[in-house]
Amino acid sequence: MNENCVGWAARDASGFLSPYNFSRRDPAPDDVSLRITHCGVCYADVLWTRNKLGDSKYPLVPGHEIVGVVKEIGSNVSGFKAGDHVGVGTYVNTCRDCEYCDAKLECYCFKGLTFTFNAIDVDGTITKGGYSSHIVVHERYCYKIPDNYPLASAAPLLCAGITVYSPMIRHKMNQPGKSLGVVGLGGLGHMAVKFGKAFGLNVTVFSTSKSKKDQALKVLGADKFILSSDKEEMESVARSLDFIIDTASGDHPFDEYLSLLKTAGTMALVGFPSAIKIHPVSLNMGMKTISGSTTGGTKETQEMLDFCAAHQIFPMTEVIPIQYINEALERMTKNDVQYRFVIDIENSLM
Amino acid sequence: MNENCVGWAARDASGFLSPYNFSRRDPAPDDVSLRITHCGVCYADVLWTRNKLGDSKYPLVPGHEIVGVVKEIGSNVSGFKAGDHVGVGTYVNTCRDCEYCDAKLECYCFKGLTFTFNAIDVDGTITKGGYSSHIVVHERYCYKIPDNYPLASAAPLLCAGITVYSPMIRHKMNQPGKSLGVVGLGGLGHMAVKFGKAFGLNVTVFSTSKSKKDQALKVLGADKFILSSDKEEMESVARSLDFIIDTASGDHPFDEYLSLLKTAGTMALVGFPSAIKIHPVSLNMGMKTISGSTTGGTKETQEMLDFCAAHQIFPMTEVIPIQYINEALERMTKNDVQYRFVIDIENSLM
Repeated sequence: MNENCVGWAARDASGFLSPYNFSRRDPAPDDVSLRITHCGVCYADVLWTRNKLGDSKYPLVPGHEIVGVVKEIGSNVSGFKAGDHVGVGTYVNTCRDCEYCDAKLECYCFKGLTFTFNAIDVDGTITKGGYSSHIVVHERYCYKIPDNYPLASAAPLLCAGITVYSPMIRHKMNQPGKSLGVVGLGGLGHMAVKFGKAFGLNVTVFSTSKSKKDQALKVLGADKFILSSDKEEMESVARSLDFIIDTASGDHPFDEYLSLLKTAGTMALVGFPSAIKIHPVSLNMGMKTISGSTTGGTKETQEMLDFCAAHQIFPMTEVIPIQYINEALERMTKNDVQYRFVIDIENSLM
Repeated sequence: MNENCVGWAARDASGFLSPYNFSRRDPAPDDVSLRITHCGVCYADVLWTRNKLGDSKYPLVPGHEIVGVVKEIGSNVSGFKAGDHVGVGTYVNTCRDCEYCDAKLECYCFKGLTFTFNAIDVDGTITKGGYSSHIVVHERYCYKIPDNYPLASAAPLLCAGITVYSPMIRHKMNQPGKSLGVVGLGGLGHMAVKFGKAFGLNVTVFSTSKSKKDQALKVLGADKFILSSDKEEMESVARSLDFIIDTASGDHPFDEYLSLLKTAGTMALVGFPSAIKIHPVSLNMGMKTISGSTTGGTKETQEMLDFCAAHQIFPMTEVIPIQYINEALERMTKNDVQYRFVIDIENSLM
């Protein structure tokens, strides 16, 4: 077997990552092969390297916020050429035949997604992610990174960015003057604040951590910061929000946040707490809505990338060498990152 | 005090109702006074006569599905005249000044609703409902019962009818060909089936009681009946529904129903179980929504009444004399009614 790819993999549920050589397929007619320059570090990388969901297949190469430069294309590829800057997100294949694929909402493909790592690929192999030197992906699941947009900044957009952008657009939260609440100020939450300000919204950040107040207001430009454990602060914004995007994956109360929505307001959930528990009065009185979301389709992902370039929206990142990844994942479990680690693959991975 | 009104009231948390004379105000300039002919029996009547929510004010005259004939109008009233057939629903006053009142969505009035019974009225008295000989209500909260529409049939529309009609319209479930699930086949559920068929929907009824199958399919015209305790039957309709209206107030699982929705489907909640517990995956995967609702505004309530008249939609009722009310309320707690009791006030109340 031709071990043409260098990566870092976890070998067991300890989640410890170390160098690992493996093979990637040659580009099929519809494939793009890209030399990876950067890969963002998502909490999913912690979950699967440590087998927290019980379905990890080792050796496991994580990473689904991938950017790089096209080095080779298949004979049918029309959208990309060698040298282009390209991104790959959380999925690399879908059925391309159902109503959702037809609508370029592939994230809801009726037959399911082939995730970028730890999934079974068309050829029966296990997909391997972006903590690696190159990747081969069907062109439909590749995105153009706009010219002059830094590759390191583009990486976190492919998961964290689209995950908050998609429900904001779906619920018409790109209309200036509306009021947005952002619960949790991590990789996803800080992007929601940035999109909110770019859309002209009045943005309130909710956090359990007072230490984030200055960052939220002064660095990210939020209009208000509420310490969610402070009842009085919470009540001061009762019935004031059109929309809340809840990025918190730790367990937290929902009734309290629903009471902050205006009549007919919506709370969009993008985190994965262990359960959602709501009293029906919180929903029924004021016809409120709670709506789930994960990533976005290919069309809106490309739109989001173009929007970030047009409005000069950049995630806040801490760029690290691959050799730092084990420490980075550990820090991530403690929310000790502002706000996204990005691995400098091209300068650290041999 | 001029005891100008005859009613039936509960005196304590036993909920036992007996005759009770009390006073209603003379019509103010904007008021309509109506001789009550019929009053529907809602589960709310059980809850408040028995002080299940802890805020009952005795003597308590229940009833908020009221129909009657105008006997007198105030000097400013322009929309009604003596002899008109009129309905009154679950609320008799709101601020008439907030954005929701301006939009005729008074049910979400920012300052709160004055409910038709057990609420504090503008004059400081406790509101008294439709188990009584007449009622005096501001004309804004009175509805025209269309000519030739039977008064006894109109009564259940004022609460049960509008409570399911409003979320169906809001979520665009009046588009022929869509698929509707109805959870629970009681006063609200059976109206949801009737509206669904009138809108041209494919209607599936979910019930814990197999005995309702024939009624659902043969009498109400539903397209499919699913016994919700049967896993195989439930799975046979997985991912098939555009919309579910959940009228069940008993505790029941939500994840199972969410799995029956298509991608981006909505479950509207109009019942009051003790809690809603959902796993985030049920919402996030497939961007599903759960949305609460109570009653409707005055505009849509009138539209619903006109729609029922135009399409000859009638609730199924069991008309009873007021003397039967204690037995009726007891039967209601056992779901032993098809599907709504209506009190024949004009022929039984002296």
